[in-house]
Amino acid sequence: MISTLRTRHLFFALNRQLLGLTLGQGQVHNFATSSITSGNRAIVYTSNGDPSSVLYAQTFPNLPPPPPNTVNVKFLLSPINPADINVIEGVYPTKPVPSHSLSTSGKGSKDSSLFVGGNEGLAEVVDVGPGITGLQQRDWVVMTKPQSGTWISSKNVSAQDILKVPRSGLSEAQAATMTVNPPTAYNMLHDYVELGEGDWVVQNGANSAVGQAVIQIAAAKGLQTINFVRQRDQIDHLKEHLLGLGATHVVTYEELCGKSFRDKVKEWTGGKNIRLGLNCVSGKTTTFMARLLGQDAHLVSYGAMSKEPLSLPTSLFIFKNLTCHGFWQSRWYLRRTPKERERLFKTLASLMCNGKLKGPEHEVLVVSGTDEDNQASLKIRDTMARLARGKFGKKLLLKIEETL
Amino acid sequence: MISTLRTRHLFFALNRQLLGLTLGQGQVHNFATSSITSGNRAIVYTSNGDPSSVLYAQTFPNLPPPPPNTVNVKFLLSPINPADINVIEGVYPTKPVPSHSLSTSGKGSKDSSLFVGGNEGLAEVVDVGPGITGLQQRDWVVMTKPQSGTWISSKNVSAQDILKVPRSGLSEAQAATMTVNPPTAYNMLHDYVELGEGDWVVQNGANSAVGQAVIQIAAAKGLQTINFVRQRDQIDHLKEHLLGLGATHVVTYEELCGKSFRDKVKEWTGGKNIRLGLNCVSGKTTTFMARLLGQDAHLVSYGAMSKEPLSLPTSLFIFKNLTCHGFWQSRWYLRRTPKERERLFKTLASLMCNGKLKGPEHEVLVVSGTDEDNQASLKIRDTMARLARGKFGKKLLLKIEETL
Repeated sequence: MISTLRTRHLFFALNRQLLGLTLGQGQVHNFATSSITSGNRAIVYTSNGDPSSVLYAQTFPNLPPPPPNTVNVKFLLSPINPADINVIEGVYPTKPVPSHSLSTSGKGSKDSSLFVGGNEGLAEVVDVGPGITGLQQRDWVVMTKPQSGTWISSKNVSAQDILKVPRSGLSEAQAATMTVNPPTAYNMLHDYVELGEGDWVVQNGANSAVGQAVIQIAAAKGLQTINFVRQRDQIDHLKEHLLGLGATHVVTYEELCGKSFRDKVKEWTGGKNIRLGLNCVSGKTTTFMARLLGQDAHLVSYGAMSKEPLSLPTSLFIFKNLTCHGFWQSRWYLRRTPKERERLFKTLASLMCNGKLKGPEHEVLVVSGTDEDNQASLKIRDTMARLARGKFGKKLLLKIEETL
Repeated sequence: MISTLRTRHLFFALNRQLLGLTLGQGQVHNFATSSITSGNRAIVYTSNGDPSSVLYAQTFPNLPPPPPNTVNVKFLLSPINPADINVIEGVYPTKPVPSHSLSTSGKGSKDSSLFVGGNEGLAEVVDVGPGITGLQQRDWVVMTKPQSGTWISSKNVSAQDILKVPRSGLSEAQAATMTVNPPTAYNMLHDYVELGEGDWVVQNGANSAVGQAVIQIAAAKGLQTINFVRQRDQIDHLKEHLLGLGATHVVTYEELCGKSFRDKVKEWTGGKNIRLGLNCVSGKTTTFMARLLGQDAHLVSYGAMSKEPLSLPTSLFIFKNLTCHGFWQSRWYLRRTPKERERLFKTLASLMCNGKLKGPEHEVLVVSGTDEDNQASLKIRDTMARLARGKFGKKLLLKIEETL
């Protein structure tokens, strides 16, 4: 049914979509957007598809007091990450859980396929349920449960799905973006090879949010990094920026694939084995990058921006003992203990507080409390359409105010 | 200099090559093939190249009594493995050590680039040096040091480079071929994933020597195997043969790449995760094979018969947590303790003695003691040329007799 809906949606005019949604062959359901005019607002969808077509804003009743072992939180900032788009499109392996608790009219099956967008976000504790220890009003928390739905003004969450982060020393933007990209960078640098001061790491897509975090965390550990980026206008400006973050070398893919580049790397490293490569590109240039790795190295992939496969000579595996892994922060959260998560966040927060790990360059999109739901929906869809056209150079953070 | 030699060799007539070898620009060295007419014979080369051009037979003085902690052994059977060809061609990562000890005229720099072919072989202990315990005359031993040069009638070897194998219950051919292929199969089945009865393994190149060992060792463990082979005349005969060895299913690459094959596999496995894949082919069909693997699986490569790279969607790494490794038995020997090697050989010998692991179908090529060196050289070169043209369907085992 979801795929039927996805196709049908394309035939609806935007305004029509804002007020109603096809639930089956021709059946139209009017949303309660008019009946609830103030309260908790969320950016939601009921079927997968292009975010600029399927997302809409909806206001729900304010939250009741938190049940035992839960807290009510108010979201301060929630990023729009590329994976969020894939989740809405339905092409991401993790599916969000429908938000039954947001029912607009008490119990009912109406909301069985209502999803709130967003995976990551910074929230402030507003009300603490019975049985909660170690958390109080005004504490900052981040979500550790994947796809929990963060594009919302307020939410009731289970204590086990959140982690407290320090309020002092961190900006809101840093805290709001600290559960996906910085841990990905940190864990890839620590989970596969034991690296010590002066050791080398190569990575591609070095200008990505993860790539920039890799550069900084590596530099803080005394590691040296060779960073590959796309050739572009003002490449010198980018190189300078990454070198400023702590990169040892910044190199374009053209240089990487050039004839004598391996010799240059040998000069740089003094012939020292490079034992870790991080890949978010795949395709031909990654084959060249893998060839720079030495005996017993690990190549860890966390993306495939080229949309090409990871293609490597089998001899690298057999004779150089290369091991290839994939890293996915969502899996890390699912498989690690709360203690391990806590330790990770403490480490990241400390790096941030010490100025060793900067927050992303960002822009905040406020969904204002004075907007009506349909105005807010238009704003969100327009933003998504612009995002798809690559109109934002910076990380986009949502601030969804309660509907007044 | 080696590459110069390789090219120059092509311009020499066969007989000329048998008697002399270019050492530099036009400098010709006559070998002592005529001065030593009886004794220890070896199949040797002094420069890399096509084995049918660079190999020759040479007779050396018989061995002196063994120095401390060494034994003198007589080779019974020594296989010609594909990797041996690559070593002679100079395209294999492990380089053999020159055989200084075979000097035909006492000390001298003449033999500094003399290499004896062969990596694997079964030998019998003939004489035991001082300090040796646990070995006596007539014991069977196999070589655990890579590229030790086994195409020879007799040899002095260090006790730490050999392992005793039981004489009873094993055929000469089984014992002579037990250090490369069966351990590769055994270790790949044990070193990456803990598999229990009823678990599934997929492998390609299932008709290779390693592949057949995988089928048998897996069956002995109660594992189920899906085995991929090339389409060929009399495919039913091959399928029957592999099923007879204990294969659960035998499938051609055409079937593997067919539309509904994944559904068929799901039926076979009852949806159970397949967590181990073994690859000696790479290329497109291996991509299809990798897609059959479930969450947290390991793909272990030990060859690339397609001569194409291993090319996999990055999503398999990220979202299915696939890990790709390479296996190389030579590395295993270098990195494992003598105790571990011993344990492995005991296990393999026991599987062989119990009829659970058959020896390879083979043919024995006798280099007769009554042949003169140049006759023996012709025979070896002819064999190598026929081998290169795919004229042997079976494993070829050399029996090099002492020159009479």
